[in-house]
Amino acid sequence: MKTISVHTQNPYDVLVERGILQKCGEYIRPLTKAGKCAIITDDNVNALYADTVTASLEENGFSVVKFVFPHGEGSKNAQVLLEIYAFLCENEITRSDCLIALGGGVVGDITGFAAATFLRGMQYVQIPTTLLAQVDSSVGGKTAIDLPQGKNLVGAFKQPIVVLCDPDALSTLPEVFLADGMGEVIKYGMIRDAQLFDKLCGLDLCTVQTEFDEIIPACIAIKRDVVENDPFDHGERMILNFGHTLAHAIETYYHYETYTHGSAVAAGMCMMTEQTGTQEQYEKLCACCEAYKLPTSVEASLEELVPLCGGDKKRAGDKLRYVVCEPVGNAVIRTVTLQEFHDLFVK
Amino acid sequence: MKTISVHTQNPYDVLVERGILQKCGEYIRPLTKAGKCAIITDDNVNALYADTVTASLEENGFSVVKFVFPHGEGSKNAQVLLEIYAFLCENEITRSDCLIALGGGVVGDITGFAAATFLRGMQYVQIPTTLLAQVDSSVGGKTAIDLPQGKNLVGAFKQPIVVLCDPDALSTLPEVFLADGMGEVIKYGMIRDAQLFDKLCGLDLCTVQTEFDEIIPACIAIKRDVVENDPFDHGERMILNFGHTLAHAIETYYHYETYTHGSAVAAGMCMMTEQTGTQEQYEKLCACCEAYKLPTSVEASLEELVPLCGGDKKRAGDKLRYVVCEPVGNAVIRTVTLQEFHDLFVK
Repeated sequence: MKTISVHTQNPYDVLVERGILQKCGEYIRPLTKAGKCAIITDDNVNALYADTVTASLEENGFSVVKFVFPHGEGSKNAQVLLEIYAFLCENEITRSDCLIALGGGVVGDITGFAAATFLRGMQYVQIPTTLLAQVDSSVGGKTAIDLPQGKNLVGAFKQPIVVLCDPDALSTLPEVFLADGMGEVIKYGMIRDAQLFDKLCGLDLCTVQTEFDEIIPACIAIKRDVVENDPFDHGERMILNFGHTLAHAIETYYHYETYTHGSAVAAGMCMMTEQTGTQEQYEKLCACCEAYKLPTSVEASLEELVPLCGGDKKRAGDKLRYVVCEPVGNAVIRTVTLQEFHDLFVK
Repeated sequence: MKTISVHTQNPYDVLVERGILQKCGEYIRPLTKAGKCAIITDDNVNALYADTVTASLEENGFSVVKFVFPHGEGSKNAQVLLEIYAFLCENEITRSDCLIALGGGVVGDITGFAAATFLRGMQYVQIPTTLLAQVDSSVGGKTAIDLPQGKNLVGAFKQPIVVLCDPDALSTLPEVFLADGMGEVIKYGMIRDAQLFDKLCGLDLCTVQTEFDEIIPACIAIKRDVVENDPFDHGERMILNFGHTLAHAIETYYHYETYTHGSAVAAGMCMMTEQTGTQEQYEKLCACCEAYKLPTSVEASLEELVPLCGGDKKRAGDKLRYVVCEPVGNAVIRTVTLQEFHDLFVK
């Protein structure tokens, strides 16, 4: 087992181990006085893993209730959140009980936000079952729901009491979701770890899976280091957004349909590096993304995408911050006006 | 002007001054880099004070937008919260802008929760315009909305950047709201300040108003002392709930109609003291409450009320905590089983 300790205000560990789902209750029991655990999950993950998790929790003395909602980003909204609150009320969940987020990023984000706000805050555990959630959204304490006006517009910073990552759970992931997560994995190499990036360049979507026991903890440790230095996202944490300024524009342009988040990030990283890096860096990054069946560009032109870059939360007044990697492994934050950003890309 | 400094994780000041509404912008300007202020208020307060506040904010260089919702506890719900979020999106409010909660406890609670969660947190200012909000809900960082299943079931701890209390604003309060606030004022005397309690015993609902310049800061300072010792409501802060265990039962029994919160607290304090205090204490407290047109008991019997006492957030498993004052000025927390609590009251 690999343990990554996260030293935020409420410290917690991320545990990475094959088969940890079957014994999750053992790890959770010493961390909480909860009598009840409420599992929050989606219909896909429910069918695959909820019984396993429930059994382990019950073996360790918890009573278990479960709320299941339809899978997909479309569920990460206020309506489902209100249904979760109602479910917690009906089941008389108290502040000393515990929520279990069992699933991908959508489950983690909405469950974390419910844990941050129900009864003004209660404990919760993250059990991420997608690669993206394991390396990204389960660490850092960001929770959120979407509004009709945009993604992640409402949320809170809330740390789990523990994160349990089971690389075996990724074996049931459709290829497109594996590729989705690889977009973020490549990003970690680009911003902080040239050695990891080189390793990824020598693997592909199939061969990488046997290396997950090393790669997943490495990614989590990078995110941990960045988040510890900037828990409330005021500065350095921005480097985690490498590729994301354009990715958000791509996702907006295509209405979050054509491209998964990781695909949009991959394209965003390549397009950013084309403008700001060397030709060699750009070509190497493109080859790496292609090995994981990730796009290196999109059909929409920069003229169409750049105007969409100013609309996200990273904006401060009329300024915009974006990230470049110079060289690979060393991310740098740049602050420019919206006009300067426009001029960088649209010539 | 009286200043009460609150040393929570994000320290802030509560300023009490007659006429402070007219110059609120002067006090807010140095505390924020915000370009825009979004005033959130209800229709009653909007008609009385929104123009004054807007003028002062604009004089001090802020651009101002305003969202007005119907007054009353009925508005403290998810629907109005979502309308506030939509309003903030429409007006392109960013994380560096500032919300202004202008009104009573409902406005403060829902605006504070919006500030805690919109874009994962932004600055906000409390300008409480009721006695209850000035002495109670504007200090301590508790924010919340109600669910159909109960009051304040969803919320967050969020400190404002400053609280501006204008005792002059209380002159427009209907008598019933003044009495409402006096319930909490008497509570502060009971739990921490026998001298304040004695002073209140010598005044009434009319004469107390000239003493507000002293009494309001005294109450805020007591709450500040308690909250600083227990910012996340794990222990001592419970003493602020003197009278509230029964008050919540009274409010539930009467569906939050017959009694205001302060009236329910007054009755709750008297009923608790009748069971746990001396006869002299009980009579003195009743006389004090009557001077402020507050009830000392309710028609519902203890047999009917006590079973409703276990349902609130203060419950931890099957235990219940309640507060007694022995003697006046010295609140003590007791932890009992639900059965023991029942036996104390129902003989």
